[in-house]
Amino acid sequence: MSVRLKTIPLTSKDFAPYGDVIEAGIDSPNFPINDGRAQRHDSLGFVDALGPEGKPTLSALFSQPTKLPASLHIMERHPLGSQAFIPMDGGRMIIVVAPKTWNGDVRHLQAFISNGLQGINYHLGVWHHPLIVLKATHLAIVDRTGGGNNCDLKGMDGVMIYI
Amino acid sequence: MSVRLKTIPLTSKDFAPYGDVIEAGIDSPNFPINDGRAQRHDSLGFVDALGPEGKPTLSALFSQPTKLPASLHIMERHPLGSQAFIPMDGGRMIIVVAPKTWNGDVRHLQAFISNGLQGINYHLGVWHHPLIVLKATHLAIVDRTGGGNNCDLKGMDGVMIYI
Repeated sequence: MSVRLKTIPLTSKDFAPYGDVIEAGIDSPNFPINDGRAQRHDSLGFVDALGPEGKPTLSALFSQPTKLPASLHIMERHPLGSQAFIPMDGGRMIIVVAPKTWNGDVRHLQAFISNGLQGINYHLGVWHHPLIVLKATHLAIVDRTGGGNNCDLKGMDGVMIYI
Repeated sequence: MSVRLKTIPLTSKDFAPYGDVIEAGIDSPNFPINDGRAQRHDSLGFVDALGPEGKPTLSALFSQPTKLPASLHIMERHPLGSQAFIPMDGGRMIIVVAPKTWNGDVRHLQAFISNGLQGINYHLGVWHHPLIVLKATHLAIVDRTGGGNNCDLKGMDGVMIYI
């Protein structure tokens, strides 16, 4: 079994089964703060940090780009926490996901491409490929620290990702 | 009493009394992830969300710029939670803070300027001015939602902020 996986634009509606899009989008509800200088799009997602000593933590990441098309070999999920990636310098991300109930069938993968002004928040337990960016990118991560196993891995073959 | 407040560059060391700098900095400890494609600077800050039904939440913000110099009139603090601002398109921020124990004396304010690839995380209870950015900027916010009073305000006069 092999698949050619093609990205679709990242929208909060299409991404909803897998997580949240953190974006000051044109259409999403918002309210003014700071004397009207800013519009806040409130509570687009929540941070989960379960298990022993689970705490939500803020980290930073500097990631090199991946040249596409590329073959994908592994998926991961975090059973004890959500995980958000927020680009700090307008970096576009390729997001490859599968449902929490994924059995490893590569035909059930879904790929998205962000517009550079979007962060994402994987819901607890959602299968996802490690981060893919199209240029060298600085990001913030919001996820969980603590005890217990918070990373399951599953290998796969025959998956090529295209923009 | 009036003060001319001048910014200093934002560094994690100088900002430590007030909060965390979320930045993949050259000198901060890090480890490789994603097959060596990315360096993670882990747990630069933690998210606090205390009080009734307190939950850490992810929001987005689109902020108009403030023209400097400008006069500042209000400070705020969040007694039940930390609050992080992460620019998504390389926006520089002006950060004006005072200690948790601040009595309103404007001589005790401190101002920082970020380099555009830095997020900040105000610690719970730290006094800060509402967000100031130098260009129209998309940001992510990581803070608290829930019941109870999570915003104290204090007015002030005679403060001019300069870069």
